[in-house]
Amino acid sequence: MSAIADVTARLFNVPLDEVLVDAKHGSHSHFHLITATVTLEDGREGTGYTYNGGRGGHATAAMITHDLAPFLKGRDAGDVEALNDAMQWHMHYVGRGGILSFAVSAVDIALWDLRGRSAGRSLRQMAGGAGTTCNAYGGGIDLAFPLPKLLTHVQSYLDAGLRAVKIKVGQPTLEEDVKRIRAVRAQIGPDAGFMIDANYSLSVEQAIAMARAVSDQNIMWFEEPVIPDDYPGYARITDATGMAVAQGENLHTIHEFEMALAQSGLSFVQPDASNCGGITGWLQAARAAEEAGVQVCSHGMQELHVGLLSGLSPEGWLEVHSFPIDRYTKRPLVIESGRAVASDEPGTGVTFDWTRLEPFEFML
Amino acid sequence: MSAIADVTARLFNVPLDEVLVDAKHGSHSHFHLITATVTLEDGREGTGYTYNGGRGGHATAAMITHDLAPFLKGRDAGDVEALNDAMQWHMHYVGRGGILSFAVSAVDIALWDLRGRSAGRSLRQMAGGAGTTCNAYGGGIDLAFPLPKLLTHVQSYLDAGLRAVKIKVGQPTLEEDVKRIRAVRAQIGPDAGFMIDANYSLSVEQAIAMARAVSDQNIMWFEEPVIPDDYPGYARITDATGMAVAQGENLHTIHEFEMALAQSGLSFVQPDASNCGGITGWLQAARAAEEAGVQVCSHGMQELHVGLLSGLSPEGWLEVHSFPIDRYTKRPLVIESGRAVASDEPGTGVTFDWTRLEPFEFML
Ligand SMILES: [Mg+2]
Ligand SMILES: [Mg+2]
Repeated sequence: MSAIADVTARLFNVPLDEVLVDAKHGSHSHFHLITATVTLEDGREGTGYTYNGGRGGHATAAMITHDLAPFLKGRDAGDVEALNDAMQWHMHYVGRGGILSFAVSAVDIALWDLRGRSAGRSLRQMAGGAGTTCNAYGGGIDLAFPLPKLLTHVQSYLDAGLRAVKIKVGQPTLEEDVKRIRAVRAQIGPDAGFMIDANYSLSVEQAIAMARAVSDQNIMWFEEPVIPDDYPGYARITDATGMAVAQGENLHTIHEFEMALAQSGLSFVQPDASNCGGITGWLQAARAAEEAGVQVCSHGMQELHVGLLSGLSPEGWLEVHSFPIDRYTKRPLVIESGRAVASDEPGTGVTFDWTRLEPFEFML
Repeated sequence: MSAIADVTARLFNVPLDEVLVDAKHGSHSHFHLITATVTLEDGREGTGYTYNGGRGGHATAAMITHDLAPFLKGRDAGDVEALNDAMQWHMHYVGRGGILSFAVSAVDIALWDLRGRSAGRSLRQMAGGAGTTCNAYGGGIDLAFPLPKLLTHVQSYLDAGLRAVKIKVGQPTLEEDVKRIRAVRAQIGPDAGFMIDANYSLSVEQAIAMARAVSDQNIMWFEEPVIPDDYPGYARITDATGMAVAQGENLHTIHEFEMALAQSGLSFVQPDASNCGGITGWLQAARAAEEAGVQVCSHGMQELHVGLLSGLSPEGWLEVHSFPIDRYTKRPLVIESGRAVASDEPGTGVTFDWTRLEPFEFML
């Protein structure tokens, strides 16, 4: 394509409207948005990004600025997959996941943005062009919501046109979780899709007890019942209860996806392009899932994953996440007839409204 | 103990005397030393540190400064193990290894330094007091050394009083590696310990071929023949050849150690306190190794590991690493009768000579 002239990182501390709580990450008052803009020697630009729950943004930006940018300067921006692999090896000693996966993701997405803009191709076309829309559900960070607010919240997803919802579990007692699950199912009716997410706050035994206690509630999947590292634990839960299990938002390398796909007994896997090596890493994970017969879905970053899922696997489920990213991009997520609609814009389809972000920028 | 008033990170880019090369990390011209100094409200101080091969230091320092320091302020410095666990959970979304493991390591070592200084106890006493010395070997980063220089270099380890040496493998052809291995064995004689380290540059099949080709050379262990993530691959190599296999420098969480100990068929495991969660993480890995019947050794950071190995497992092998850290501390490593001697100074036993480091400091 053309040689890379520079890679620039920016860090934004974006406030949430209210403090959101899940079982293991604690309270979220902000999210960090870390952008990476790749400028080519011919002047073209592409922008990628990653995000987190308000911790780790400085380290991510520092790695892009001090390690990845110097490594990339002068290299051909068109070798996206080779550059992704080269960045992983260059940083291997401090990598194999963690901050490196977030930093590489932001840069990789910028390179895909350039690839798409240069070729006049949208993300859904680059992902395979299989469809133009995908399944979508609302994912709440609602563990601290009292029951009436929880019910209002899930109803708001249905009112927005979504046909499935996910709630957090991990209350102090099993009984409280079961009560909330039953109340949500009663609220949304028998036809809506319904998932639960424990953010790995349970033991295998606790997860089995919960799955059994709500076995009549038609739960589509039980997400992260136990720590992401305990792949065999996931399989024990699904084997013991017949309830489908899902993970992926905490898998950061292709090796972790391969171990999970081989050992966890997953029915759904949920890679997040912002933390598994970008679009290149997401597509690698999706291909491994396809080979393993596991349905690929997504975690977070719906404004980008809508293109990937629509183009590659329209029957996958897009998580519509609770962080208010839509206020800071030029194209808020489009829902039509219960499905999310991919952008046809060349590139990733995600263009930031920098003016709205700038009040939240950290000076690096 | 007393509440934490502040945690301060510093980053140094320390030059090597010559460019050192291994099979997968490429060339090293510098190493990054990242120090973390914990100051208590009563004025006491402890210092810990981590290091890398010259990449990732800014990200590590940024995480200490922007994430860990604010999290730790006001907490009791005596709860070392609980603080280690709390830091891991606080940063879990961007963690599970990678930069987080390096950042937590530096802070954890500072807390152990405070613990030892406050109690008047040395690291070898805190680790269990089983001994005062441990086995030690010289580990060269010598893949690019021509054969005559390689032989001079391994001889320099023996001349310094060490009784075992390790060389890098991963030359363009198996024949070249075999030639170097045989020449080194001839140089050091039949009684010296001898290990080889591929820095995961081989496939399982290549590693099996190499182990078979040098099966008569009395190799103590074959280190990182394949990528750290391929635990079953390690077991296939040792099962096929009978040669002992070792890994650990790239395992960053207790979960990774547990998977390796369960699946890799290791005879030796080599945790590095600078990247597996500090002294707390190293002792966790060592206990897991003991339960699995695997001999704990160490990677890098000999100036600190000498206290851990001497106090916990004197028959373990201390790697005397090639980075010239001894020039920047108050106590260069002591070798007596072929064994490394632990410091009896309260704390970690590692005190930096800041005046010598300051010319290499990055301004953060
Ligand atoms: Mg989740
Ligand atoms: Mg090694």
